[in-house]
Amino acid sequence: MSFSVIGKDTPKRDGAEKVTGHTQFLHDVTLPRMAHGAILRTQYPHARVRRIDTSAAEALPGVLAVITADRVEQHPVGFAKDHLALKGGTADGGKVRCIRDEIAAVAALTEEIAQEATRLIRVDYEELPAVFDPDSALRPGAPLIHDELGSNLVNLKYQFAHGDVESAFAQAHVVVEGSYRLNYVTTACLGTMVAIASWSAPGSPDASLTMWSTTQVPFLYQRDLAEALGITGDRVRVIQPPVGGNFGRGLDLYPIDIIAALLARRAGRPVKIAFERIEEFIASPTREPCVIHLRTAADRDGRLLARDARVVIDNGAYVSWGSTTPYVMLATTAGLYRVPAVRFDTTIVYTNNPYSGSMRGYGNLESTFAIEAQMDDLAERLGLDKLEIRRRNATRSGEVNPQGSVITSCGMTECLDTVEREMRKPVARPPRTGWKRGVGFAAMFHVAGGARVYRSDGCGAILKLDDFGKASLITGASEIGQGSETVLAMIVAEELGVPLQRVEVINSDTAVKPWDVGVHASRTTFIAGNAALIAARELKEKLLGLAASVMDERQEDLELVDGRVRVKGHPERSMEYERVVRAGHFRSGGRTLVTEAFYDPPTEMLSKDLRGNVSPAYGFAAQGVLVEVSEATGQVQVLKVASAHDVGRALNPPAAEGQIHGGIHMGLGYALSEELLIQEGRVVNPQFMEYALIPPSDMPEIVVELIETVDEAGPFGAKGLGEAGVIPVAAAVANAVKDAVGVRLTELPMTPERVFRALSSRPAP
Amino acid sequence: MSFSVIGKDTPKRDGAEKVTGHTQFLHDVTLPRMAHGAILRTQYPHARVRRIDTSAAEALPGVLAVITADRVEQHPVGFAKDHLALKGGTADGGKVRCIRDEIAAVAALTEEIAQEATRLIRVDYEELPAVFDPDSALRPGAPLIHDELGSNLVNLKYQFAHGDVESAFAQAHVVVEGSYRLNYVTTACLGTMVAIASWSAPGSPDASLTMWSTTQVPFLYQRDLAEALGITGDRVRVIQPPVGGNFGRGLDLYPIDIIAALLARRAGRPVKIAFERIEEFIASPTREPCVIHLRTAADRDGRLLARDARVVIDNGAYVSWGSTTPYVMLATTAGLYRVPAVRFDTTIVYTNNPYSGSMRGYGNLESTFAIEAQMDDLAERLGLDKLEIRRRNATRSGEVNPQGSVITSCGMTECLDTVEREMRKPVARPPRTGWKRGVGFAAMFHVAGGARVYRSDGCGAILKLDDFGKASLITGASEIGQGSETVLAMIVAEELGVPLQRVEVINSDTAVKPWDVGVHASRTTFIAGNAALIAARELKEKLLGLAASVMDERQEDLELVDGRVRVKGHPERSMEYERVVRAGHFRSGGRTLVTEAFYDPPTEMLSKDLRGNVSPAYGFAAQGVLVEVSEATGQVQVLKVASAHDVGRALNPPAAEGQIHGGIHMGLGYALSEELLIQEGRVVNPQFMEYALIPPSDMPEIVVELIETVDEAGPFGAKGLGEAGVIPVAAAVANAVKDAVGVRLTELPMTPERVFRALSSRPAP
Repeated sequence: MSFSVIGKDTPKRDGAEKVTGHTQFLHDVTLPRMAHGAILRTQYPHARVRRIDTSAAEALPGVLAVITADRVEQHPVGFAKDHLALKGGTADGGKVRCIRDEIAAVAALTEEIAQEATRLIRVDYEELPAVFDPDSALRPGAPLIHDELGSNLVNLKYQFAHGDVESAFAQAHVVVEGSYRLNYVTTACLGTMVAIASWSAPGSPDASLTMWSTTQVPFLYQRDLAEALGITGDRVRVIQPPVGGNFGRGLDLYPIDIIAALLARRAGRPVKIAFERIEEFIASPTREPCVIHLRTAADRDGRLLARDARVVIDNGAYVSWGSTTPYVMLATTAGLYRVPAVRFDTTIVYTNNPYSGSMRGYGNLESTFAIEAQMDDLAERLGLDKLEIRRRNATRSGEVNPQGSVITSCGMTECLDTVEREMRKPVARPPRTGWKRGVGFAAMFHVAGGARVYRSDGCGAILKLDDFGKASLITGASEIGQGSETVLAMIVAEELGVPLQRVEVINSDTAVKPWDVGVHASRTTFIAGNAALIAARELKEKLLGLAASVMDERQEDLELVDGRVRVKGHPERSMEYERVVRAGHFRSGGRTLVTEAFYDPPTEMLSKDLRGNVSPAYGFAAQGVLVEVSEATGQVQVLKVASAHDVGRALNPPAAEGQIHGGIHMGLGYALSEELLIQEGRVVNPQFMEYALIPPSDMPEIVVELIETVDEAGPFGAKGLGEAGVIPVAAAVANAVKDAVGVRLTELPMTPERVFRALSSRPAP
Repeated sequence: MSFSVIGKDTPKRDGAEKVTGHTQFLHDVTLPRMAHGAILRTQYPHARVRRIDTSAAEALPGVLAVITADRVEQHPVGFAKDHLALKGGTADGGKVRCIRDEIAAVAALTEEIAQEATRLIRVDYEELPAVFDPDSALRPGAPLIHDELGSNLVNLKYQFAHGDVESAFAQAHVVVEGSYRLNYVTTACLGTMVAIASWSAPGSPDASLTMWSTTQVPFLYQRDLAEALGITGDRVRVIQPPVGGNFGRGLDLYPIDIIAALLARRAGRPVKIAFERIEEFIASPTREPCVIHLRTAADRDGRLLARDARVVIDNGAYVSWGSTTPYVMLATTAGLYRVPAVRFDTTIVYTNNPYSGSMRGYGNLESTFAIEAQMDDLAERLGLDKLEIRRRNATRSGEVNPQGSVITSCGMTECLDTVEREMRKPVARPPRTGWKRGVGFAAMFHVAGGARVYRSDGCGAILKLDDFGKASLITGASEIGQGSETVLAMIVAEELGVPLQRVEVINSDTAVKPWDVGVHASRTTFIAGNAALIAARELKEKLLGLAASVMDERQEDLELVDGRVRVKGHPERSMEYERVVRAGHFRSGGRTLVTEAFYDPPTEMLSKDLRGNVSPAYGFAAQGVLVEVSEATGQVQVLKVASAHDVGRALNPPAAEGQIHGGIHMGLGYALSEELLIQEGRVVNPQFMEYALIPPSDMPEIVVELIETVDEAGPFGAKGLGEAGVIPVAAAVANAVKDAVGVRLTELPMTPERVFRALSSRPAP
């Protein structure tokens, strides 16, 4: 199959605008009469608010509105509907439960006045005893986070069992076991969270709300925000201007959005709230911290017999989408390598810590870290090559895994082979004295065609062609920096047979675009791509039908290639496609060309026992990492990462590679340096000086190999990729560290301190 | 036929936002890194530019780009492609031809710097002899405006003949004759013209352009601007934010838009140019000034036998859409009242005056002024009642007029009867000493279902329904303040059977909306309304089809009423329609509901001999005006205007009345006070202090009667109305002045000075 656009290196279409300062980011948006909002948060992670005195704030010139929980109508929000945007009100017993909790908010003429006003609000607290870890929280007599629940156990259980786990462990040749601790990290988006709310027809009970937001799930947000405000969803319109990163941050609805809407309603003006950096570190979502207890059983040939995983999650004060990451942890436990018997259980516990949210990889980094550690441990126990044991257990096309995931295209073995070859290549840089080198591997299994976590996993597309041959794709999909605009335009251009620059992508307004469940689960290329493809195919049919009448040919004899409609086999009998469009339009009874499509993959939601084929395609990858570890300081330097990915087909190779590069950067931070330090419920490093992203100078050589298995259900064979790069990194780095210095790190990040301590506790040789 | 939404008084949906300051007008739009542009215009109405020295301007700190005709690529612009955006270049022989001519432009960090920089540009001129009226311009040896044409005669002729005009005049019982002089007026929009240009991928040869503009014909603008810039139309995207009035101003492409684009390209930044008020008066389009020579012949019963019109138009320096107003003047000459023989001819002449553009009513005010004067003159000569003579000649349903206009619905006689009744009612206010009262009448004939002046007179619509029952109509139509959003939403709500506030209208972005020829010819309600109606009908069919499967009923038994799908005759078996939508969406193989339509009326363009049925419907109206005229000062006070309109059906009565009220206001200004005074080619009253709009305190009592003839082709029977109110006003006022004081004013505006002079020249009694 030969392509004109697909597979060609194509610059990200928003790239030039972004690097030259032309992009109007959400931060740049202003509206006439717009006021600025600021939020006052609690001083204590667990307390009862006795009294809030806002009189001084209200008296400050320029203040337009001051709201507290008791002054506004509120409805529960969050995945478990277990909190209100503004806490500390009587409906809630006056409780605040974590340091992020919002207790008042101000709208003022300027941001400075709003901030100053929040400092003038006097709050009397009754401090309450608090708990900051799951163990303490589950102890009898522990302070209750949500008194009415009678327990700190979150009412969410993920329990799965398949095969005879007990007898598998009993009969195993070898069993390895470990506990793995994954700490808080945050998305660290360069663009902080912003919400702008504007009510139409101020004062009218029918007023409708337009929100400019960092959400990445605008249609679910439309529903959730409406519920939180006590209005119907038809009254909420969501605009998504360009944002500086999201990485899952935009999956939940957050108090910032609701508070902006409440302030705007009260002030009778549009209100903008923009987090400054420290607030972003404190109040934006994190990756869910957890401890994974894992046991793996194998036979003497290294074939996996069973896995048994128990995950304890520190839920923080409220339940978010982050509390559902066990879905993905389970998918990895049951699906990363072929394993006949699986048991999985969770304990999710309220604490007075900040609550988490969704973040790229969504549980998979954590479980892969545990599983891949044990693959190495098994190999070591059995004296097997580390890639050989993986190959023996590699998932293959045609298999159905214990959860019921149907594996169609699968390049896992090729991925393993590829990174093996790549890591065998000599490295130019000479070893340093006092540093030891090691190589580690990890593989990856993830959904690659959406994940039916909601009743619809679909996406709509509308395609219109103008008189100049410009095609506008109005897609349900959202661009959050991942390059979806570019790849969707490529799909349309390829299918239509028109120049790429003639395709425009419209994607930022719920009033305009058709429904989509949102950006998550690496689904956009696959799902929105298929919707775009169907709409393009239908448009081409309409266009060729029109051309048949304009050119007086039979439709089945016509094709649209490189912008010309031509007679198959007689390319000299051709016509520019935009002339066909105009001929169809500018005549009596003329028409313009518009088509629409909705693609919802043929998948199923998980059943109560967590079985179901949630995605029409699955992605596979393997990474090899070469590290150098200083035995003197515990410092880990990553020299090289090789990353091989079964992408189905690489629609835009540099964009695919860019996603993987970005994932590796994020994964290396997770592995080595990033930790949002929370002590007694407080974030103690809420600044980039202290929250250590990997700087460009520390980035290793990266080799990406894209393996094309051409998925039969994917658009032009493509599969999703957005999360794949980040998932195995920490696991591979930990295995490389083990390979280098012989210590198994079971907690992230592997800071010099942790590595040094592990090295120090090695038994004397 | 009973309606839920149609015919109900419905507030303009953008009204509350506009009056409370929430609307983001075009003036309010800013973009990141946006620069500000200013234009330097010629000092002389006819001159040759010898040299332009921009060095001082370029040296001014904050200046980003200075352009002149010779520094940029330009392509001819305008209806006759007879000018360039920037004049004075070598390609143009260095000529400037009217005081509006742009010779340089500056982009700078602020508007102030840009303005200052234009003042630093030194221009050496060779002043040329100039002509400022058609007669002088046609004299042998007159200075040529466009040297290369060899004549000042514009190459546009509107010649029409039908019936035996000569013998009709020869056999007539009575012939009246006159010349009528119509002077410059301007739209006087409260929001001045603004253009913002932003190029994507700065520096790339493939860069595409986004324009924020006051255009009201975005798709024609897309084409014209691309041509002016030498790029293809697919590279131009047009955004239409809310504007403070347009009234036809947005029909041509103007230099401001092209210059903004040229500056933005040069500066590598977005550039905004906003006219300040004086510049708006000087550089925005005017109504075409003309002299109409008209003769009318009638038999002894007052039945019209023939009309013979010759129109001389002062075209100004360049040909605009304003030069095509004879199309409409002819339509009135041939179509306002039944007349068997018609002759029409034009002389359109270049002068060194500013050129005109399109303005509400588009030639019809001018020709109606002449024709209705002669209807009164005929009645007087024949001793007939002024309404009786009109009734005898009134157009009736089923007629085909000399141009071939097919009259379907027609309430002209009812309109005349209605204003007659209304004007007979006693007026409370006692007459003033020294003032004389008079009553005048005039009728109106205008297209009311579009006008095929372009190969397509169509409009597209896309309609999508979301999970909350919110319907988004993406219409090709543009909102320029006329209320189209409201009426289109009403049409969709009525047809679908859903609440009005559940319908959103999207209409401001050519990349999103389907094609439409633009806002002109009172066409939006009719054409865009029909497109919306078809899309809604199809959406309802889809929805009922879905409901049939969801509710397990037969589709033909279902109806959608008041937001519920119910079984006909069994309203208790019903379901909220948004639940049907969700049931169809949130299931395996689910769908969302989107439809699209394109409506192009079954009409024809005028043939070379100016025949053709250009509209599927025609509108009729009659006005009666009561005036008081001071014989001492010549002042005319309008006490009452009664305006009866055949609107087909009043979809939103207060909006229809509002259009008529606004038209009457504009018409009274045209009649009595507004004149853009141009002396030696210069605008001498470019301020609201001197350009006299009618102030609110001088507005008369207005009585509007909407007559519903229910047009068979109109959406719910409606016909267009946007221009109808303004058209007959000046004619009726002039007839009332004649009735009051016995003098026939043949020139507008009828200022106290003109009336006083006319009174003074009355023959002594």
